[in-house]
Amino acid sequence: MQSVQYSSEVIVELIKYSAQDIDVARAAWVSTKGEASKDVTQDEAKISGLINYLMRDRHGSPFEHSYFTFYVKAPIFVWREHMRHRIASYNEESGRYAVLKPEFYIPARERNLQQIGKTGHYQFIEGTNDQYAMTKVLFEKQCIDAYQNYEQLLANGIAKEVARIALPLNIYSSAYVTMNARALMNFLSLRQHVEGSHFPSYPQREIEMVAERYEEILKEHMPITYAAFAANGRVAP
Amino acid sequence: MQSVQYSSEVIVELIKYSAQDIDVARAAWVSTKGEASKDVTQDEAKISGLINYLMRDRHGSPFEHSYFTFYVKAPIFVWREHMRHRIASYNEESGRYAVLKPEFYIPARERNLQQIGKTGHYQFIEGTNDQYAMTKVLFEKQCIDAYQNYEQLLANGIAKEVARIALPLNIYSSAYVTMNARALMNFLSLRQHVEGSHFPSYPQREIEMVAERYEEILKEHMPITYAAFAANGRVAP
Amino acid sequence: MQSVQYSSEVIVELIKYSAQDIDVARAAWVSTKGEASKDVTQDEAKISGLINYLMRDRHGSPFEHSYFTFYVKAPIFVWREHMRHRIASYNEESGRYAVLKPEFYIPARERNLQQIGKTGHYQFIEGTNDQYAMTKVLFEKQCIDAYQNYEQLLANGIAKEVARIALPLNIYSSAYVTMNARALMNFLSLRQHVEGSHFPSYPQREIEMVAERYEEILKEHMPITYAAFAANGRVAP
Amino acid sequence: MQSVQYSSEVIVELIKYSAQDIDVARAAWVSTKGEASKDVTQDEAKISGLINYLMRDRHGSPFEHSYFTFYVKAPIFVWREHMRHRIASYNEESGRYAVLKPEFYIPARERNLQQIGKTGHYQFIEGTNDQYAMTKVLFEKQCIDAYQNYEQLLANGIAKEVARIALPLNIYSSAYVTMNARALMNFLSLRQHVEGSHFPSYPQREIEMVAERYEEILKEHMPITYAAFAANGRVAP
Repeated sequence: MQSVQYSSEVIVELIKYSAQDIDVARAAWVSTKGEASKDVTQDEAKISGLINYLMRDRHGSPFEHSYFTFYVKAPIFVWREHMRHRIASYNEESGRYAVLKPEFYIPARERNLQQIGKTGHYQFIEGTNDQYAMTKVLFEKQCIDAYQNYEQLLANGIAKEVARIALPLNIYSSAYVTMNARALMNFLSLRQHVEGSHFPSYPQREIEMVAERYEEILKEHMPITYAAFAANGRVAP
Repeated sequence: MQSVQYSSEVIVELIKYSAQDIDVARAAWVSTKGEASKDVTQDEAKISGLINYLMRDRHGSPFEHSYFTFYVKAPIFVWREHMRHRIASYNEESGRYAVLKPEFYIPARERNLQQIGKTGHYQFIEGTNDQYAMTKVLFEKQCIDAYQNYEQLLANGIAKEVARIALPLNIYSSAYVTMNARALMNFLSLRQHVEGSHFPSYPQREIEMVAERYEEILKEHMPITYAAFAANGRVAP
Repeated sequence: MQSVQYSSEVIVELIKYSAQDIDVARAAWVSTKGEASKDVTQDEAKISGLINYLMRDRHGSPFEHSYFTFYVKAPIFVWREHMRHRIASYNEESGRYAVLKPEFYIPARERNLQQIGKTGHYQFIEGTNDQYAMTKVLFEKQCIDAYQNYEQLLANGIAKEVARIALPLNIYSSAYVTMNARALMNFLSLRQHVEGSHFPSYPQREIEMVAERYEEILKEHMPITYAAFAANGRVAP
Repeated sequence: MQSVQYSSEVIVELIKYSAQDIDVARAAWVSTKGEASKDVTQDEAKISGLINYLMRDRHGSPFEHSYFTFYVKAPIFVWREHMRHRIASYNEESGRYAVLKPEFYIPARERNLQQIGKTGHYQFIEGTNDQYAMTKVLFEKQCIDAYQNYEQLLANGIAKEVARIALPLNIYSSAYVTMNARALMNFLSLRQHVEGSHFPSYPQREIEMVAERYEEILKEHMPITYAAFAANGRVAP
């Protein structure tokens, strides 16, 4: 049996992108000037003012011309939520064509384990040492058993697409994800719980970990857009 | 512990719909006549000729005004493929808000268990009695163990969204799915393997079972559209 | 020459629909209960509370299972804005296949003719009698001349798709439009200027006239959804 | 009055892109290998074989991670068809915020002016000298009159959004258009009439001119993808 590996992380790598604040401004200027403004001088204050206006008044289309392609590795239960975002392109690892690797997500000790509050507005609080120990032991045992069965089925000639069906939802899977900046901000607005956001969101922590990495990348490559998003209550335009 | 239940089926119920062949014709007639043709006489031969022409020449938009809402119950590994269809609306059972029921998919004896052929064009053939017996035993044990752990975690105060993460991919989940007739035909073209189809498809059997039920419903409510789809190599317009 | 007709109106007819407040609730209940709830008792207070919660916290997907198909007749400059809404299905009258009718939009006397204020936040105020008279005279003359030329070109064997290219943007065109309730609320949020809306919108009056008719139909068929939309600052979920 | 300008061309400029054949292969390899393959060696024969297989068997998603942003200048009647492609992002020049320039499309002498054949399968043949002369004279007169009226209305304080409504459909308008390679191939399959295509298309010549320019750009930047598209009957995957 291959040795089972555990992680409490998600991986997000930026594969490629075509995304700059100036592109948002250029797209908006076509609306008001009707010209291709490829070579326009970059006056940062002007761009910043324009982007802030677009964000505040929900003119979303200029943000659609900027694109990011990510490689993401996350457990399947995260992918199930991620794939609900339809304005995105996906190519995910296939358990029909390849043997899945024995890599499983186990919550870190600091992951809150108890929920309190009302449906739809759960708050999460720290688990006890006992709770964490039990969770870890049970999950690890399940992962080992499941992967052992998977290998045994494959070894006995069962098709990959069948052998995989009882693997647990915390097995890791990888995908290419391409999203434009508008769709990305929508993702952040729904998949992060940030105080001061205009609309409340109560995402599961593990997809929020993906969102946090996306957020860093947006911030790095489109700092003005990101600042306007943050300053306007994290409402996607 | 709740007693674990197994099934080899998927459930598809038609919840509501607004879908008739005449609606396809009416939408197309707006293009050529510019009139609301709510009260048009239903000349079946004329409608049939028109729909056949639309299908053959890939005029897809008239098929978008007909809608079906399904209630579907299927294992999560099927949902993962289903959700890749983005021109559709979904509301799926949430393991964050509700305790999942101990209902698991186990392949029926007649489900082919061995794959042969090249990647991307797998053919599936019958498994031996031994293969089936082993598959069944291993899957059932895993389902019982996993659900037992799930209950134990919940009993010890672990949040539902955490407790569920190691449940196996063959646990059933339910959803409302709404698709228009055009998206539905695209689904059928990709998720059924039918001899004589213009483009080859090699779907996993379990999502094909969902597609077969969708196909029956399409055929019942839009018989002319379905006949044209079948007669034109099952190419979605 | 066919006699030219003028109108200051848009036409919106509800052709068919499958849209009720209870359907929104049912879709949401699948998420929390995992059951097809076709036959659920309709407790209006409960449905209302649920829908208000969904609207406020931006759970948009349950509103996607309700559909409306409209027949709309509006001038082409309105269609140009309407078609920017991509989550919708369209079949529009084709000037390639049919001869367009001499029906043109002329603003009514009460249509505000002067704009004041800043770009992006224009306010519109009443025109003078002279302004209105001039507008009407010039537009009518142009419509007559353009349609006369169109007929002359057709009479001389010029293809319809060519003859039509210099017709004015205020000629009427018809289309079937299908939108789900979520997309419809998004349309209303962007295409109506309503005091007290959470986000400001500055639509052109003529598309607002279409939106107002859509709004009436939404209100009639999904009164609880509409009330929640209005009560929550007209923010589409 | 500003002097009116005529043209028989459309303009397509590639503003930016992130589009290479290797990206298609990388996205597909994630499905079969589950790895980010940023640094993979580029074996052209292997990439070509893979892309050809994806095209033939309609695995469309790997083509979605490649993006093109175009600046396009075309008459409004072309934009009306273009905007029907919903898997695309648009920012078009606004006649509400800016004064439109007096630039109009007039067919070139070689543009076929007569249509023959059945509805839906029109063929176009050359016009006579008389037909062309008449078309040109009538269109030019209309453009001059319309633009003169437009300027007069603006000069008399009529709002831009009103003054523009009777401008003819052959006035030029500009936009940023962003499409991924999959959507672009779908556009080409529907908006070009190419002998040997698997499915017949009968586009209006003027949008075909835009498609031809898109095709050159696709061919230049993704030659293997383009070759596979052409070799497989120009069916978009």
